[in-house]
Amino acid sequence: MAEHPRKLSTEECLERLGSHSDGRIVFCDDGAPQIYPVNFAVDSGSIVFRTSAYGPLATHVHDNEVAFEVDELDHDHHHGWSVIVYGQGQTVDADETHGLTSLHMLEPWAAGSRTLHFRITPRQLTGRQFGGDH
Amino acid sequence: MAEHPRKLSTEECLERLGSHSDGRIVFCDDGAPQIYPVNFAVDSGSIVFRTSAYGPLATHVHDNEVAFEVDELDHDHHHGWSVIVYGQGQTVDADETHGLTSLHMLEPWAAGSRTLHFRITPRQLTGRQFGGDH
Repeated sequence: MAEHPRKLSTEECLERLGSHSDGRIVFCDDGAPQIYPVNFAVDSGSIVFRTSAYGPLATHVHDNEVAFEVDELDHDHHHGWSVIVYGQGQTVDADETHGLTSLHMLEPWAAGSRTLHFRITPRQLTGRQFGGDH
Repeated sequence: MAEHPRKLSTEECLERLGSHSDGRIVFCDDGAPQIYPVNFAVDSGSIVFRTSAYGPLATHVHDNEVAFEVDELDHDHHHGWSVIVYGQGQTVDADETHGLTSLHMLEPWAAGSRTLHFRITPRQLTGRQFGGDH
């Protein structure tokens, strides 16, 4: 029988974010929702990812309200979880970029120069477990 | 070496949507981006999912601009794909609900009454393949 979703604790949310490196960044562009998959790392409790200095993320993420989602959804077994970070995106200074210990995790999959780093510091962090803890 | 993302054709986008049943619905709530995982079915080229009549999706999806994303991201092998549907969410009439052949695919994972059905008819459909066609 289907179970009610279980709310994940902050510790569980951070643990699950730390165990993954693929997520989705979401923002609003003049009222229109936008979503982009990115690979990311967790650095000092915040989300760090890198992107091209000339793409849509460069234009819309800095100083904007964003959501960042990571999940594991298994339809066949009707269970899964989702963790969502809400906060403002901020560019990371070049000086700080050099010090990011997690940078080695941020090798981009796709070709092209991705010189811009963003950080999302969680203002709100929520997570839900669906279908029981299988 | 990393490759440039490949744009998927409309046929490839529809094929990949049809091969999955877990996606993410994205919308803007007063300028704040929101994202919810849902299980879905493809019905006559549109996305159909069901939800509680009393939750946030019921309030914000009808007649609103939404994005719907499905992906397969494999960080270990640096490849994956993402398909995004842009369109307006519309509630599905009770009469039409009975006729949806895909309804059997929409058994909810979580407990609770999910009596409201939504349809997203793609106004725009985009897809990208990252890291080559492995």
